[in-house]
Amino acid sequence: MSHSARYERGLAKFGEMYGDLAKTFLASLEDIAPDLGIYVMEFAFGDIHCRPGLSLPSREIATVAALTAIGTAGPQLRAHIDGALNVGCTEQEVVEVIMQMALYAGFPAALNGMQIARDVFQERSHKKIQKKQVGRRNKK
Amino acid sequence: MSHSARYERGLAKFGEMYGDLAKTFLASLEDIAPDLGIYVMEFAFGDIHCRPGLSLPSREIATVAALTAIGTAGPQLRAHIDGALNVGCTEQEVVEVIMQMALYAGFPAALNGMQIARDVFQERSHKKIQKKQVGRRNKK
Amino acid sequence: MSHSARYERGLAKFGEMYGDLAKTFLASLEDIAPDLGIYVMEFAFGDIHCRPGLSLPSREIATVAALTAIGTAGPQLRAHIDGALNVGCTEQEVVEVIMQMALYAGFPAALNGMQIARDVFQERSHKKIQKKQVGRRNKK
Amino acid sequence: MSHSARYERGLAKFGEMYGDLAKTFLASLEDIAPDLGIYVMEFAFGDIHCRPGLSLPSREIATVAALTAIGTAGPQLRAHIDGALNVGCTEQEVVEVIMQMALYAGFPAALNGMQIARDVFQERSHKKIQKKQVGRRNKK
Amino acid sequence: MSHSARYERGLAKFGEMYGDLAKTFLASLEDIAPDLGIYVMEFAFGDIHCRPGLSLPSREIATVAALTAIGTAGPQLRAHIDGALNVGCTEQEVVEVIMQMALYAGFPAALNGMQIARDVFQERSHKKIQKKQVGRRNKK
Amino acid sequence: MSHSARYERGLAKFGEMYGDLAKTFLASLEDIAPDLGIYVMEFAFGDIHCRPGLSLPSREIATVAALTAIGTAGPQLRAHIDGALNVGCTEQEVVEVIMQMALYAGFPAALNGMQIARDVFQERSHKKIQKKQVGRRNKK
Repeated sequence: MSHSARYERGLAKFGEMYGDLAKTFLASLEDIAPDLGIYVMEFAFGDIHCRPGLSLPSREIATVAALTAIGTAGPQLRAHIDGALNVGCTEQEVVEVIMQMALYAGFPAALNGMQIARDVFQERSHKKIQKKQVGRRNKK
Repeated sequence: MSHSARYERGLAKFGEMYGDLAKTFLASLEDIAPDLGIYVMEFAFGDIHCRPGLSLPSREIATVAALTAIGTAGPQLRAHIDGALNVGCTEQEVVEVIMQMALYAGFPAALNGMQIARDVFQERSHKKIQKKQVGRRNKK
Repeated sequence: MSHSARYERGLAKFGEMYGDLAKTFLASLEDIAPDLGIYVMEFAFGDIHCRPGLSLPSREIATVAALTAIGTAGPQLRAHIDGALNVGCTEQEVVEVIMQMALYAGFPAALNGMQIARDVFQERSHKKIQKKQVGRRNKK
Repeated sequence: MSHSARYERGLAKFGEMYGDLAKTFLASLEDIAPDLGIYVMEFAFGDIHCRPGLSLPSREIATVAALTAIGTAGPQLRAHIDGALNVGCTEQEVVEVIMQMALYAGFPAALNGMQIARDVFQERSHKKIQKKQVGRRNKK
Repeated sequence: MSHSARYERGLAKFGEMYGDLAKTFLASLEDIAPDLGIYVMEFAFGDIHCRPGLSLPSREIATVAALTAIGTAGPQLRAHIDGALNVGCTEQEVVEVIMQMALYAGFPAALNGMQIARDVFQERSHKKIQKKQVGRRNKK
Repeated sequence: MSHSARYERGLAKFGEMYGDLAKTFLASLEDIAPDLGIYVMEFAFGDIHCRPGLSLPSREIATVAALTAIGTAGPQLRAHIDGALNVGCTEQEVVEVIMQMALYAGFPAALNGMQIARDVFQERSHKKIQKKQVGRRNKK
């Protein structure tokens, strides 16, 4: 079934960007608007994010820029900063993109975006430390 | 003078991105708010656009994304699409960035951004043809 | 007094849409800007929401759409989703309006609006269950 | 081919709403981003606008509300006011929706939306008169 | 009639700010939504702009700031820059307010607002010159 | 060093507006984007807020208006309401500016801004009471 093909392609792309968070995301819509979750997988990740012509890191730079500038999409900005780092953007690049938004959307947009980036960076750093500790323990 | 240093650095960066349009830009503010033009050169181009940590093409991808998403900055979007192409982004990359904004800011934002890109592409194509024709004539 | 007439008409319309929440709403402004509460009753509910030419459910569909698209009015979106259901819109209609905003304001707007709808639906469902339980107890 | 099925369904829905304007719309994207036109037909009109659970007139009321409130989508607001009238909304309903946006997005949003509605109403009225005149001439 | 009292008070305040433009403004809504014009006079000018507690020049500074920052209200920004000058703000103050918006809404908002200010200043300057010339001619 | 001159000037202006909060503000950016803090001091406070031609209270009225209207800058609105009161605006003026935004950005913007103002007023009032109590205790 072709519907399923787009969905599966989107799910794979989502996985490439966010690891195993698809279940959590889809579950948050399951009891109210499961079709919206399907459209996100099919159209946002299956159609748009799979297009050639722009690298995935560049797509994430564009997304972090747009969401910082818009200023109304906190949870999505958080997710895409994480996604940007997962597909190869550096923390410095994320910081630079957000800082540059001071020019186009004003300082409050940049400052609020930066606090979200800070949270994401800290969370990732905690996870890394925990993984290392688990790794050490398992070696013993 | 250090003020001048930032200004000069910004002017050079502006030139790298937009050729000799600085005069036109600064002139548009000269009789009303010349300081705003100075701040654009000093802060926007001299401080932010000269920062390391993010390539100039990536900075332009972020800017085209943000201005398309915001939807209130037509003249600036036009200028930055031109700037993006001048610093090495391809037309296809610009198209992809704008198209992707349908996801984050809705289809109208993407459609209106695309019409601006179309105008810029056509203008550049006309200029190229004219240059070629002038080139041929000069060879004769 | 005519001022009072518009206010009273607004208060009645507010009551039709939100039950007895007017006191809570007006109290939240009483110590800082009571006139803003008066204007909301007079102008928003007494003038606009009482106009003929558009049914109340359609007015609420328009409001839920606009507040979801704008994305900066969480508490008001919450209230108007509740109001929409109170004046005869179905939960499915509310879900469809919010989902459709993905087209015009982007997926983040739709996703964030949907989480607010979800909260409102759950709260209403809890209240219904509580009422039933109280009803049963009272019968005993 | 299933892609074609969504596209064809969207094209039919687009036709139901806007008559034979699909060609003009798709042509405006053909030389720059034809895929964006395809996504509009597939996703916006084929997926979302074909969903059950909300009548087409209510969908257009939601869209006119959102586009008026956002204020950055002039050409799309124009098209959807026309679409709203084509699927059975009255001019009065459109006027009421736009007027109500004064409450949620401010008077400038309502005033600017109203001028667009005025243009659309006048254009439709001119077309009707022309049709009648052509009709009379043909009868002679 | 009290409705009329608010309307008349608003009309007088509108006149204080914009001279004899009320007719033009009301006429632009007469054939489509005359009530919206009435609400503007009653609520915007009769209720809000007549409130004590903030001087009229400060109200106009707030309005020019907000409309520049929002970026979707060109015609209204134009009118309120004119109004600000009519109630005693200086051109320099208007320029400073708009320039400051670069901080809060980004440089494009400030740049686009400044071009509108420039148009208004030039128009007023032309009118002054014309008046002087008419004055001279009448003296002859 | 001239860089330092702008920074120091900005820091002094910041102090004039917010007392000793500069450290807290700069610390919030220190581990992620210290340069953004520097730009805020240099450009926002050292360049723009130090300009002549508009009084500091008027600058704060413009800022409170813009941030209320934009609706995406909660923490900054909170800070600037506090700043407005520190440089001589009255609570009533702040309330009037925010209320007036109902006209230009809609009632939700005004209502949400007013709740932030309410929090700031209460916090300041608590601090005053505490200071008085400390003063009394110290006298004993």
